[in-house]
Amino acid sequence: METEISMDHRPTTPLLDQVNVPADLRALKPEQLRQLADELRQETISAVGVTGGHLGSGLGVVELTTAIHYVFNTPQDKLVWDVGHQCYPHKILTGRRDRIRTLRQGGGLSGFTKRSESEYDPFGAAHSSTSISAALGFAIANKMQGRPGKGIAVIGDGAMSAGMAYEAMNNARDAGNRLVVILNDNDMSIAPPVGGLSAYLARLVSSREFLTVRDVLRKLARKLPRPLHSAAKKTDEFARGMAMGGTLFEELGFYYVGPVDGHNLDQLIPVLENVRDAAEGPCLVHVVTQKGKGYAPAENAADKYHGVQKFDVVTGAQAKAPPGPPSYTNVFAQALIAEAARDPKVCAITAAMPSGTGLDKFADAYPDRTFDVGIAEQHAVTFAAGLAAEGMRPFCAIYSTFLQRAYDQVVHDVAIQNLPVRFAMDRAGLVGADGSTHAGSFDITYLATLPNMVVMAAADEAELVHMVHTCALHDSGPIAVRYPRGNGTGVALPATPERLEIGKGRIVREGKKVAILSLGTRLEEALKAADALDARGLSTTVADLRFAKPLDEALIRRLLTIHDVAVTVEEGAIGGLGAHVLTLASDEGLTDAGLKLRTLRLPDIFQDQDKPEKQYADAGLDAAGIVTTVLTALRHNNTGIEEAGARA
Amino acid sequence: METEISMDHRPTTPLLDQVNVPADLRALKPEQLRQLADELRQETISAVGVTGGHLGSGLGVVELTTAIHYVFNTPQDKLVWDVGHQCYPHKILTGRRDRIRTLRQGGGLSGFTKRSESEYDPFGAAHSSTSISAALGFAIANKMQGRPGKGIAVIGDGAMSAGMAYEAMNNARDAGNRLVVILNDNDMSIAPPVGGLSAYLARLVSSREFLTVRDVLRKLARKLPRPLHSAAKKTDEFARGMAMGGTLFEELGFYYVGPVDGHNLDQLIPVLENVRDAAEGPCLVHVVTQKGKGYAPAENAADKYHGVQKFDVVTGAQAKAPPGPPSYTNVFAQALIAEAARDPKVCAITAAMPSGTGLDKFADAYPDRTFDVGIAEQHAVTFAAGLAAEGMRPFCAIYSTFLQRAYDQVVHDVAIQNLPVRFAMDRAGLVGADGSTHAGSFDITYLATLPNMVVMAAADEAELVHMVHTCALHDSGPIAVRYPRGNGTGVALPATPERLEIGKGRIVREGKKVAILSLGTRLEEALKAADALDARGLSTTVADLRFAKPLDEALIRRLLTIHDVAVTVEEGAIGGLGAHVLTLASDEGLTDAGLKLRTLRLPDIFQDQDKPEKQYADAGLDAAGIVTTVLTALRHNNTGIEEAGARA
Repeated sequence: METEISMDHRPTTPLLDQVNVPADLRALKPEQLRQLADELRQETISAVGVTGGHLGSGLGVVELTTAIHYVFNTPQDKLVWDVGHQCYPHKILTGRRDRIRTLRQGGGLSGFTKRSESEYDPFGAAHSSTSISAALGFAIANKMQGRPGKGIAVIGDGAMSAGMAYEAMNNARDAGNRLVVILNDNDMSIAPPVGGLSAYLARLVSSREFLTVRDVLRKLARKLPRPLHSAAKKTDEFARGMAMGGTLFEELGFYYVGPVDGHNLDQLIPVLENVRDAAEGPCLVHVVTQKGKGYAPAENAADKYHGVQKFDVVTGAQAKAPPGPPSYTNVFAQALIAEAARDPKVCAITAAMPSGTGLDKFADAYPDRTFDVGIAEQHAVTFAAGLAAEGMRPFCAIYSTFLQRAYDQVVHDVAIQNLPVRFAMDRAGLVGADGSTHAGSFDITYLATLPNMVVMAAADEAELVHMVHTCALHDSGPIAVRYPRGNGTGVALPATPERLEIGKGRIVREGKKVAILSLGTRLEEALKAADALDARGLSTTVADLRFAKPLDEALIRRLLTIHDVAVTVEEGAIGGLGAHVLTLASDEGLTDAGLKLRTLRLPDIFQDQDKPEKQYADAGLDAAGIVTTVLTALRHNNTGIEEAGARA
Repeated sequence: METEISMDHRPTTPLLDQVNVPADLRALKPEQLRQLADELRQETISAVGVTGGHLGSGLGVVELTTAIHYVFNTPQDKLVWDVGHQCYPHKILTGRRDRIRTLRQGGGLSGFTKRSESEYDPFGAAHSSTSISAALGFAIANKMQGRPGKGIAVIGDGAMSAGMAYEAMNNARDAGNRLVVILNDNDMSIAPPVGGLSAYLARLVSSREFLTVRDVLRKLARKLPRPLHSAAKKTDEFARGMAMGGTLFEELGFYYVGPVDGHNLDQLIPVLENVRDAAEGPCLVHVVTQKGKGYAPAENAADKYHGVQKFDVVTGAQAKAPPGPPSYTNVFAQALIAEAARDPKVCAITAAMPSGTGLDKFADAYPDRTFDVGIAEQHAVTFAAGLAAEGMRPFCAIYSTFLQRAYDQVVHDVAIQNLPVRFAMDRAGLVGADGSTHAGSFDITYLATLPNMVVMAAADEAELVHMVHTCALHDSGPIAVRYPRGNGTGVALPATPERLEIGKGRIVREGKKVAILSLGTRLEEALKAADALDARGLSTTVADLRFAKPLDEALIRRLLTIHDVAVTVEEGAIGGLGAHVLTLASDEGLTDAGLKLRTLRLPDIFQDQDKPEKQYADAGLDAAGIVTTVLTALRHNNTGIEEAGARA
């Protein structure tokens, strides 16, 4: 049903209007908090209706956000939201309500927490599972400096499956009662959770009633000073674990409190107050929430409105993206399904991103060959290495930015052993609204420096199909293909995928004066630039190098030799394709007698969120930027004399 | 006491002489295994006496190694040793006894497991905590392909503190009874273990007797087919956990068996046989061993002979390293202690490597400012970021190769937020006997590509002192200093450290024709090369750039402009200093009119273990290599005509 989208339905919020910062909130009476939370929920829905973004997660923590700021002394107590996509209500309560309808827009508020935005965001996030480590850092730093201030981490059950959360929990004892971990258990991260921990949490929640305030008081009262209590405590430990649950966390050094109903402020606030005042050591408060809570369209949606387009607040209808070519993600999924149909050894691994990577579709077709390992990129890669060592053909589908989590596994378990793990790196290059934390800027550099690696970038969706096929057939070592967020160019998809020769590029357009050496989806802009240069009498060749490693040395050597000027173009930071081409040129002495070679790349700054095309233009990585670089290079010489005319 | 070292005391080993591969072992009678293990222990001691290497770990698993190969069907069952430094007895039993006295030598056996060495090494290792993921990969791959073969991971208690081990455990259920994890609990990884998990394991071991065979039988007998048993099982779960311990592992999906005496073959073999035959799901066998077991000098040493020089087998006296300059590690430790004396905000973090990083000395001086987080590099970095955000001045002392484990945390938690975490990267460059898994080859590339990072390399130990001081005072963002394994050059240490200007190099030697742009400790070789070039009439400048990022652009521009040829020299792989210098030259058009610039770097292969100087010579990164590169460049032109004479 087509719906007229009214984007700016503003709710009536008399109480929220009085709250600019948490101190205002703490001046309210406890009985006013229910209404405040309701208003906060309506304001969140209204704002995300305008901006799009993460909705379900924020709605699930409206009461929790209210309670934390009410009970704890933020910003002196350091509140760290894991991932940060649930922080919109937090932003509204911490002085940013006036800008909340700029969320994720260029120049606007970040969709995650961000230190530069507010003192109430002591630690930025966007990748998962960092919050306990950071909160522990805050707690210990304040302890060392003899000043007040707890560290409070709010972390989802999915994020708890990541190794670094466990590493942090394993170190929690040092913090004493300055560390509070709030486990926000909504039984669903981005995808339904997987693994032993998730099953454990489900048992904890299902096996008992929510904790009452009296339970908490009774429990914390046991925390007498240690000398009086240690013997009793020791024998009591397993018994407490059984009675109250949470033995796993208690064994790691936490005092476990829960489960607590995360939408019941009458429970939540006294529980948090008791944890704040009475706990002797680090506390883990297990709060059960419902993603999308309080907004029927979200509660009823399968993904609980995890990430949404702009939508109509009344009906929940999301603005539809204009029809267009298929997304790279979908093309990858279909191509991989085709490979799996051909070859029973093809299998796929995702780290809790089945939908984002397209592996949900692969799983529909091949459930027994799909592995969702949870938020566990390190395990994903080494598990894939084990599969490959035993003859399977695993595709590790991990976003470029998240593969950073598994860099050592890529080096140590895959590259050194030269095992044929296939890396499908979605979200390579700039990603727009998610900003710098999600940009895939570094993979060319950090992968192409590794011996044995093959690194490809798809110039369009047809190329992606060929490259997936090439990966599937490449048994002699690791291979990676990168492709961007968003839709393809609309090029026809090949009926039969082609196996590309490793390390061979292709000439897309022949010219004489200028060579553009493109890697990845800037090819479109390179071709536009070539047209513009041709129009200026500068006949331009465009090559799609396809491979950052191994380089097509013969092709590059020829292009650098026969043209007056050459420019490399890539969607990546310094140290990648441009650096490898320059190194080749220098190794072979091509620079000795003069070589006009320029490398266009992402700038040496972390770019804030904006439309990707705007970001690329800022980086000089659009047609205009390429043309300018070529013209400047042609004009440039060591004496400053313009020579383009003389040569052209 | 000085001792005559007799390096080749060969034990008498009549039974071991009959065992070339595990099949021979399995032909023995159970009552012969005790003697075999004793002979295996003597042979291990004898071999390491000759080669040096990891001794204590191997001695601790002599019985376990024997029992695993006796009970399981290696190599069809895939045995994965975590880290792999305990694998010398395994190598002796798996066809490599004839080469065991070449361990860690150039051309000899690796000191770790290695796929290319033997089918009995299905997965190589050297970094910790990868074994469960890999074993899971083997188990699942065999399950998918419908063929026999379990995955068996042997992992130490220290390695269990790493996040990726937890990520793997969280996914174990998929493997069913094809996965066996043997937790080798010797209560000491390299350093004494830390954290909640370690305390938990200690409680498990101390709270009860070793498991008897009858206990195991009784326990596994409970594992009836699921339909018959599931209701009983559910209610029984916590009770079993209490009776037998190991609830934490059981909650993650394992069937826990233990603790078992890891030196008692009469217990170990039937327990493993029962696990092999009767377990219904993934099993974790908790084996308690003693590092250094059966060799008095090791048992009595504080570090249990974790890593040793060659030694006299009878007395245990280790060959002394010749006296020489202090190690970089020690210089770093002393410099950091001096900074801490000056500034109460300086603190230090290690991930289970206090001795390797020198932080043991720092901890002696400043125990309250030292944090050993266990094998948990990811947590270490984000914890440091939290400390830095709250005003402390944390030094993260992590080997170059291990910092790969925390790459995403460096990007996402440190660099994007521009937090002043100080990275002290020991073992940068090639490391010799530990081989490619421990080489610090990539850090310049993977760090210098990040916005906001400052990347320094110390040319000698005096420079390291200045750089530690510079790090301590650098509050505006992240900063890293790299330095190699081994001893300094013998240069005098500064009485007062100097704060270096960020991004400024220094001229060490002035010349006119040739410029060598050095980063790091190749400076000595660069100076030797300069002497050799001078002797040939090629007056040579040597610069120590100090910074890979930011580059000293003015200095580099000048050096490239006024010399006939320039060479960059670094102890790192492609994409690092050389790439950044080339990119600068290209950005500024310095190549346009001709520029003889060459970049010397580590080769695009993983170099096997050897003496570092041999490895560097192979890479062309010694004086001879530099001279050759310069002379070749001077001779080179596009027409092949020699021009060095004409210019010189």
